Amino acid sequence: MKKSLRIGLIGYGFMGRAHSNAYAKVNHFFPLEHQVVLKSVCARDEAKVKAFADNWGYESFETDWRKLIAREDIDVIDIATPNNTHAEMALAAAKAGKMILCEKPLSMNGPEGRKMVAAVEKAGVANMVWYNYRRVPAVTLAKQLIDEGRLGRIFHYRAKFLQDWTINPELPQGGAGLWRLDVKAAGSGVTGDLLAHCIDTAVWLNGGVSRVSAMTETFVKERQHNLSGKVEKVGIDDACAFLARFQNGSLATFESTRYARGHKALYTFEINGENASISWDLHDLHRLQYFDHRDQGTTRGWRSIHVSDGDHPYMKNWWVPGLQIGYEHSFVHQVADFIQGIETGKPARPTFRDALETQMICDAVLKSGKTHKWEKIGKFK
Amino acid sequence: MKKSLRIGLIGYGFMGRAHSNAYAKVNHFFPLEHQVVLKSVCARDEAKVKAFADNWGYESFETDWRKLIAREDIDVIDIATPNNTHAEMALAAAKAGKMILCEKPLSMNGPEGRKMVAAVEKAGVANMVWYNYRRVPAVTLAKQLIDEGRLGRIFHYRAKFLQDWTINPELPQGGAGLWRLDVKAAGSGVTGDLLAHCIDTAVWLNGGVSRVSAMTETFVKERQHNLSGKVEKVGIDDACAFLARFQNGSLATFESTRYARGHKALYTFEINGENASISWDLHDLHRLQYFDHRDQGTTRGWRSIHVSDGDHPYMKNWWVPGLQIGYEHSFVHQVADFIQGIETGKPARPTFRDALETQMICDAVLKSGKTHKWEKIGKFK
Amino acid sequence: MKKSLRIGLIGYGFMGRAHSNAYAKVNHFFPLEHQVVLKSVCARDEAKVKAFADNWGYESFETDWRKLIAREDIDVIDIATPNNTHAEMALAAAKAGKMILCEKPLSMNGPEGRKMVAAVEKAGVANMVWYNYRRVPAVTLAKQLIDEGRLGRIFHYRAKFLQDWTINPELPQGGAGLWRLDVKAAGSGVTGDLLAHCIDTAVWLNGGVSRVSAMTETFVKERQHNLSGKVEKVGIDDACAFLARFQNGSLATFESTRYARGHKALYTFEINGENASISWDLHDLHRLQYFDHRDQGTTRGWRSIHVSDGDHPYMKNWWVPGLQIGYEHSFVHQVADFIQGIETGKPARPTFRDALETQMICDAVLKSGKTHKWEKIGKFK
Amino acid sequence: MKKSLRIGLIGYGFMGRAHSNAYAKVNHFFPLEHQVVLKSVCARDEAKVKAFADNWGYESFETDWRKLIAREDIDVIDIATPNNTHAEMALAAAKAGKMILCEKPLSMNGPEGRKMVAAVEKAGVANMVWYNYRRVPAVTLAKQLIDEGRLGRIFHYRAKFLQDWTINPELPQGGAGLWRLDVKAAGSGVTGDLLAHCIDTAVWLNGGVSRVSAMTETFVKERQHNLSGKVEKVGIDDACAFLARFQNGSLATFESTRYARGHKALYTFEINGENASISWDLHDLHRLQYFDHRDQGTTRGWRSIHVSDGDHPYMKNWWVPGLQIGYEHSFVHQVADFIQGIETGKPARPTFRDALETQMICDAVLKSGKTHKWEKIGKFK
Repeated sequence: MKKSLRIGLIGYGFMGRAHSNAYAKVNHFFPLEHQVVLKSVCARDEAKVKAFADNWGYESFETDWRKLIAREDIDVIDIATPNNTHAEMALAAAKAGKMILCEKPLSMNGPEGRKMVAAVEKAGVANMVWYNYRRVPAVTLAKQLIDEGRLGRIFHYRAKFLQDWTINPELPQGGAGLWRLDVKAAGSGVTGDLLAHCIDTAVWLNGGVSRVSAMTETFVKERQHNLSGKVEKVGIDDACAFLARFQNGSLATFESTRYARGHKALYTFEINGENASISWDLHDLHRLQYFDHRDQGTTRGWRSIHVSDGDHPYMKNWWVPGLQIGYEHSFVHQVADFIQGIETGKPARPTFRDALETQMICDAVLKSGKTHKWEKIGKFK
Repeated sequence: MKKSLRIGLIGYGFMGRAHSNAYAKVNHFFPLEHQVVLKSVCARDEAKVKAFADNWGYESFETDWRKLIAREDIDVIDIATPNNTHAEMALAAAKAGKMILCEKPLSMNGPEGRKMVAAVEKAGVANMVWYNYRRVPAVTLAKQLIDEGRLGRIFHYRAKFLQDWTINPELPQGGAGLWRLDVKAAGSGVTGDLLAHCIDTAVWLNGGVSRVSAMTETFVKERQHNLSGKVEKVGIDDACAFLARFQNGSLATFESTRYARGHKALYTFEINGENASISWDLHDLHRLQYFDHRDQGTTRGWRSIHVSDGDHPYMKNWWVPGLQIGYEHSFVHQVADFIQGIETGKPARPTFRDALETQMICDAVLKSGKTHKWEKIGKFK
Repeated sequence: MKKSLRIGLIGYGFMGRAHSNAYAKVNHFFPLEHQVVLKSVCARDEAKVKAFADNWGYESFETDWRKLIAREDIDVIDIATPNNTHAEMALAAAKAGKMILCEKPLSMNGPEGRKMVAAVEKAGVANMVWYNYRRVPAVTLAKQLIDEGRLGRIFHYRAKFLQDWTINPELPQGGAGLWRLDVKAAGSGVTGDLLAHCIDTAVWLNGGVSRVSAMTETFVKERQHNLSGKVEKVGIDDACAFLARFQNGSLATFESTRYARGHKALYTFEINGENASISWDLHDLHRLQYFDHRDQGTTRGWRSIHVSDGDHPYMKNWWVPGLQIGYEHSFVHQVADFIQGIETGKPARPTFRDALETQMICDAVLKSGKTHKWEKIGKFK
Repeated sequence: MKKSLRIGLIGYGFMGRAHSNAYAKVNHFFPLEHQVVLKSVCARDEAKVKAFADNWGYESFETDWRKLIAREDIDVIDIATPNNTHAEMALAAAKAGKMILCEKPLSMNGPEGRKMVAAVEKAGVANMVWYNYRRVPAVTLAKQLIDEGRLGRIFHYRAKFLQDWTINPELPQGGAGLWRLDVKAAGSGVTGDLLAHCIDTAVWLNGGVSRVSAMTETFVKERQHNLSGKVEKVGIDDACAFLARFQNGSLATFESTRYARGHKALYTFEINGENASISWDLHDLHRLQYFDHRDQGTTRGWRSIHVSDGDHPYMKNWWVPGLQIGYEHSFVHQVADFIQGIETGKPARPTFRDALETQMICDAVLKSGKTHKWEKIGKFK
């Protein structure tokens, strides 16, 4: 008989769906000691949250997140709400002794994140942040190859996350679906939304960052605000690019924008080592590009690895070689790993503390965008 | 309150999992009047079928498919067993008045398929065959573009389905997971397994086939049989290629093999029309390649369409632009369409009769491989 | 002091230019004992041939090819005229003891080609046919890899050559630039023009062909003829596809057309062996795709080899790694190899006899297109 | 009768060959009023320069560049020597009233370049710098599309030039073939060698740059020097990345390195506008990627344009659609344009003054790499 892991989800937007799907699927594909139970979902709009609960099979719903956290029959609080609510909810959940899964970015900024880390560590509760791209199989394979030492000394890292969905100046800001354009809800624009993903992966694959020099821009200066109904100044960064030095001496470039016509969600990274290089992109997420200089000379070339074999990360749990999985599966993997972390006592990552490092880098990036100077990364340990 | 659609699944292999996943997901993503209910699953091994039922949430299990079909509390019989069992099960299910979903190929051969068609049509039960690739969004988009008349007169069709998993002569034949290599269970090799997919899509996109000239080969002549324990002659076709003429006058080449080193499941098709061309491949299933000669001259080029926008087929039900779905989703779409077919009275396709056409083409291909002559397609209407 | 190799070229069309460029460049890039001398060019239109001679630096010109062949100061006759003139010119040139370079296809048909082979072999003159694609560095690399035994037993070969330039029915046939559409000048359509290239490469890479089953089509039945000024029946094949068996047991598909919208000159081939596979396409001719099953499991993938390194065939004579050469360079390589063949006594290939084999296969293909039966390949040795 | 344009080339290294090939070919393919005459080539090593002259058909040779410049029978001085010699030679050639073609980068630094500009402008002699990539047909097509206003407001520009040929620390610096690693001969490393190309193209396509923030690195600190025979400190930048702001407000990232394993000469750029985007890479130089948001919604995609049609820039002078040209052709185009500039009175670009702008940006980049601050671009007009 399996143990239950009872989920209480806050938020039913895009991420609420992605997480719910992961909870619904994980036991079908991953052998775990725990059975995930969709206990309750919480949001302010009663009609909508009820419909959401019905659709996904949540046993109940709440309209006050404090009540959700207070419930005895819930083991895990999953925070899938706008960034400006993460800290308050996480502090309360930690206090209530709940395990916490929190959407990324961890917080509005470093100081806020530091409090969250302190809270979960003091409470001793399992905690994790939804930087899901670590668990795209091709990305996990990249990590394996790096950990095996295949690349040798690292010279370069470059990442970008390009979108084009906010080019239209008529697009409003704020409210459901558009809170990412509202600095009060999001804290920042592409830096917290997109570069945070790039940074999380980069630190995971290539270690810590020492310093950054950034450039930010807000192309559309004013937008109608959906909540106030008025045209308001846009406070977020529409685009951000920065240079970075990793602690291992490698040079890096990072860039993100929502104004790169033709790219919907093109997250790419490439890492160049002395012996081998790796690159990946989210638009074709099931492939990893790999170049190994040790291959025989005349047949050297970038290998396009279709990461769908049984010996590729996570793939033996799905279908057969050649048949790809998609975006949503990265969340299923993260839930599976979180549960295995509980079962084995080796916590899955990134933890809140890991995510704080990303937050501190984001802070330095945003600061550099204003000071126009190189900035060091603040403390996160 | 939603109506129930109660499923009775026979078979828990690869396809049993794919179908179960589709049933489990469809109501989460598609607004339907019916709620799918995983009523029962049937297989001969009690321990295993029980475990499967537990894992996927089936309410019960059976070990005798005749009992399953006889149950009053089941609306749909889903046949996901080896090919040599389809006909008997389908005839029984039709007689019992059940709706029937049947794995492809429909049958061991045309005559057998003809009986199945007669049975479901006589019984007046909803019926569909799992040619799932029609519902990969990029393939559905291809169909839309063709139906809009964008290609003009069609000159060429070419399709192939290349795999490499049976090159090793030590691989046995027969039994669980390997029945596809056993001619008694499968009826044929790549023709029924892989070319049937290519043909189903082709007929859907380009209309009927008039005649074919085929070449078949069995590279590994003998293999250990898992059931008898003896080395037995291999009766299936390892590879099959054929020329074809469509009724619309276009020329076609089809090829399939399990001996194309480097390809895991490379199903590709291309269609060349007077004004535009389309191509697609399963290894990167979320992309459609499209060339339109009417584009301005100097900027003409093959467009790589990332089929993930809200106005692309099925995609508004999933995530956001740029985030791809995978193989399994084609089954979810097929269930959704099947149910909508019931609800609207416009049956989803391919029906058994549609699949019979594919079967008759397969028969002609296999015959031509033996006679070394061009063969016409037998009647299917 | 270098020896001279004095060229007499017949024809100044597309191929006349390509050959002239090769002659002009070869000594700049390849160390040879011979210096190519552009002695004379011959064509019927005096004004045009004079202009051509001036442009390319030919020392003289002729308007009667028999006079050119009779000249004492010419070592090599290069036949770059329509197909229906090859035999007569070659027979005369052989009789005159000239070395002969002949455009492909060798002849209008097998019997004609057999006479040409007999003539050059009787005369003992160096001879070669311009199947230039053998000497695209990526194709030559493919040959090297095959000769090294990397692929193991061959299972499959597939080639196609797709164009789209004759879809417009208003395009006339016949005369300068369009003789390829006139069956009297060309002998056949895509079979001799395009498939002949595919077959030459295939036989070179994979050995002889045993039998074929073909399908041909002429989509546009009548076209204005440029010479007669009248609408005349089109006698060529617009499209041709065929199945083939190689002598080594491998299965093959070949296809060619001028009605594949979106493809300008897409010559592709792929060869699947037990251990490795290779593919190539002319649209990106400097790349070879290579898959080696012996690579470590999780990092296996198709390698995209940018064939531009110093240890790649021919490339040390050009620029530096990463900088590609183009179509014209294959002709330079062929001249260089032809001259080295003279210097070393090991004749460069394909010789007329090699090209006769291709011709016999083309004949069988065209015959099968009419008989609708499998046809064996006629004798060529 | 054509006029003569008599060339005097200084230097016979990689660029000396590329230029000589361009001179030898240009009249074969481009209709011009001038006939290029290979008058003389100059280098210090008499035996080698004589061999070079013989190989390429130069009428004479010199071993003292001052003598070459002094010759009355020479119209154009082509400077293809290491960077530290450009200024002295150009000043002398201008004084002698010669037209001047100079290899890139123009000079060792901005102040030196400013003198060169003053000299040629005072002398009133035709002048051009060999930034050859402007004349790759796909790049020229990009310029056309931008000039037609297709992209709309520009948001982003990104370029990189990645190589991997100096990773081996045993590679020496200095002397023939390796002077690019010697700061005394080259002035800088990747900035002047590679980024200068990226910057020239960028300014051409996207206008002037306002300010930059750069990061440079020398991974291998010491190398054997070929001239001194001793291990010496490496003075060049092995890698350089910088952020930039264009005058049109767009944001840019630039990066170059010789330590990106797997890339031989991967020069890429991408430009994102409000309505359309363009990208290109040197490894597949005959293709331009183009995305146009105004395409119909469901069929939008990046178009892969095979730039080989008769209406593509320069291509009607070469072969037929589908057949690609290579790296060397960009030099042929540049000579053709230079001559047409003389003939039409509209000088071809980039002139020395254009190249000075690139030089000033390089200076600012290198300065920023040392000051770790944003730097403005110095005056160049």
